[in-house]
Amino acid sequence: MKIIDGGICAAKGFKASGTYCGIKKPSVDNINHDIKHKNDICLYVSDVVCNAAAVYTQNKVKGAPILVTKANLEKSGNKAIAVIANSKNANTCNADGVEKADRMCELVANELNIPKEQVIVASTGVIGQILPIEPIEKAVPVLAKGLCYNKNLEAATAIMTTDTIKKEYAVEFEINGTVCHLGGMAKGSGMIHPNMATTLNFITTDCAISSELLQKALSDIVKVTYNCLSIDGDTSTNDMVCIMANGLAFNDEITAEGEEYETFKNALYEVMANLTRMLAKDGEGATKLLECICSGAKNLDTAITVAKSVICSSLFKAAMFGEDANWGRVLCAIGYADAEFDINKVDVDLRSEKGTISVCKNGAGVEFSEEVAADILSADEIYIDINLNDGNTTAKAWGCDLTYDYVKINGDYRT
Amino acid sequence: MKIIDGGICAAKGFKASGTYCGIKKPSVDNINHDIKHKNDICLYVSDVVCNAAAVYTQNKVKGAPILVTKANLEKSGNKAIAVIANSKNANTCNADGVEKADRMCELVANELNIPKEQVIVASTGVIGQILPIEPIEKAVPVLAKGLCYNKNLEAATAIMTTDTIKKEYAVEFEINGTVCHLGGMAKGSGMIHPNMATTLNFITTDCAISSELLQKALSDIVKVTYNCLSIDGDTSTNDMVCIMANGLAFNDEITAEGEEYETFKNALYEVMANLTRMLAKDGEGATKLLECICSGAKNLDTAITVAKSVICSSLFKAAMFGEDANWGRVLCAIGYADAEFDINKVDVDLRSEKGTISVCKNGAGVEFSEEVAADILSADEIYIDINLNDGNTTAKAWGCDLTYDYVKINGDYRT
Repeated sequence: MKIIDGGICAAKGFKASGTYCGIKKPSVDNINHDIKHKNDICLYVSDVVCNAAAVYTQNKVKGAPILVTKANLEKSGNKAIAVIANSKNANTCNADGVEKADRMCELVANELNIPKEQVIVASTGVIGQILPIEPIEKAVPVLAKGLCYNKNLEAATAIMTTDTIKKEYAVEFEINGTVCHLGGMAKGSGMIHPNMATTLNFITTDCAISSELLQKALSDIVKVTYNCLSIDGDTSTNDMVCIMANGLAFNDEITAEGEEYETFKNALYEVMANLTRMLAKDGEGATKLLECICSGAKNLDTAITVAKSVICSSLFKAAMFGEDANWGRVLCAIGYADAEFDINKVDVDLRSEKGTISVCKNGAGVEFSEEVAADILSADEIYIDINLNDGNTTAKAWGCDLTYDYVKINGDYRT
Repeated sequence: MKIIDGGICAAKGFKASGTYCGIKKPSVDNINHDIKHKNDICLYVSDVVCNAAAVYTQNKVKGAPILVTKANLEKSGNKAIAVIANSKNANTCNADGVEKADRMCELVANELNIPKEQVIVASTGVIGQILPIEPIEKAVPVLAKGLCYNKNLEAATAIMTTDTIKKEYAVEFEINGTVCHLGGMAKGSGMIHPNMATTLNFITTDCAISSELLQKALSDIVKVTYNCLSIDGDTSTNDMVCIMANGLAFNDEITAEGEEYETFKNALYEVMANLTRMLAKDGEGATKLLECICSGAKNLDTAITVAKSVICSSLFKAAMFGEDANWGRVLCAIGYADAEFDINKVDVDLRSEKGTISVCKNGAGVEFSEEVAADILSADEIYIDINLNDGNTTAKAWGCDLTYDYVKINGDYRT
């Protein structure tokens, strides 16, 4: 497997474009006082019909685009050609939300001359503000005209809200000697605590694979990637991951589990795990990426539950911001995880590029140098290694520190 | 029922004392440069043996004092006479923790000439630091000598860690014409998200009531008071609520459910709900108390789950700090609550002493004046009224805003 450029355009036959339509407010550049218009809407399209799969938020409040996309994929038998997505307005909790989301699909369908139910729609941003449809009506022809096989970046920037960096990742891999590609883009920085789904994530591949296996692979990988991510414990109303496979790599279609399916799943894991990591690193206000690796678990659910519990602890997150090796907070979070294990067998190490220290052995503290610990925690990426010494399963969870800036950003999000 | 002074000494026959033994570091007064020694250990004692009941943290990591107290009450058949508690060191995750906690009970037992198993012990503070026993050995005789029927304040200040105010509450009530008293003290400011128990809370009463009913009343009331509190989502390892009833009011002992039991339970609710409110208001870094009232629920669990979900949302907490009427975050948190109801029937109002505004009706936003909303949210105590319009049950949950100071306090807690 090879890491490549191209994001959602890395796979053959996917074109993308992005533009500014007026949902985001123009911003003024502090240096040269120019008015800047950031992309706020994007479109991407496959040259041929794709098998599609998606997972959605488990929040009872569901954004209107979620409802419309779900209905479309049901109607089309999990086939899709195009995706339209906007940022800054979530089109959620609005009386006319479904009508507007449906209209977005219709606009794309008319412009590209494809069936409306083969269009996926997504929105992200503020909840409960009416989505203005006129700017989108004007933008769709512009987006269609702008479609290119290398404009993945235009699309990746158009879905950003409080994100500070664009998130793309793509890989090249072989299925039975045929070169395939799989890539994706993601957005998200706050309201991130995916539950069976996640923030907006879009994946494309040219690998030929049946809809059923595509959905199975997506659901399995979501469980160990996006669902192991938490920025702030809040599960969004608009979370969605969708994947489209257009088959243009011309490998023999994967229709059964086996070696090829595993190869495909590995590629999907690689892309989704790396996008997850980028989301964690760009968490609202974050200065540090936290990666918790729970090993020695008797099963996957235990490993995930323990790793996520640590990543979600506000106290531990604040301690990491302060670069304070307060391992008692790791133990506390392990202790309230809803999983079965023997707390007296638990070991904990803290690790970064600067070194590793053991802080807890058999559930009790061990002496360590605060100086060495402070040096290790001064790094940008901190690893928390937990060994339950109770089995052979490992899982990872990703998060970030809790900072003044998280409070600042969310104390005044709407204005 | 009448609110009275006296905290844990409000009930007849309870003496208390507190002192500085050296577990807390001395602090220097910024104004007159005096060295200050804050109380860090306390003792309170009943004149006669009490029926006792307690609930403990559900965290798998349990502080050694929790283990020792539980064992003592089992051995004594839920009888207790004295309570010793220290702050600044939790005596948790230490290899010699149980031995030290047991030694604390022994010191008190020897000094007061009572059975060791009738002593309750509690510790709160940093996890994983060895508890120095010598200062406690020196302190116990001082504490015993200092016991007075009005030194509740000495004890209430001795259990404070990051608390900024002492928390006491007491009431007077009548059981069949006999005047009874019930009062308590609490500590806690961070690592507060009680699960079947809570942070340290001590209640005393002179009401005569059987151990069984005392335990039942405590467990029932904990569910709708302390367990409906969250400061930061972290369930502490040392949470404990204990209540001691010495019978010195000389009412006919309550031994069955009925009118007298309900009167007692109301008094217990009054004290525990008010202590819970004080804990929320003094949450680490908090500037605002948040009280979420969920009504119209089909059962108590639904009402509690929904109210707690809102109170726990980091995004909503930060929005309240920013005085931003971002009601979408209330809807989002309601939506991911693990409970069954129809999101399209949900109404939400925001309220304070300055007024009330409706922000959401039938699950969708309603227009409101941002100016009026900002004025309402500028108050110190904010009420979030949620009506599920699905039944007749109501529950409350308490929390606080998420602020820069929470991050500051927890970025550097140990030093």
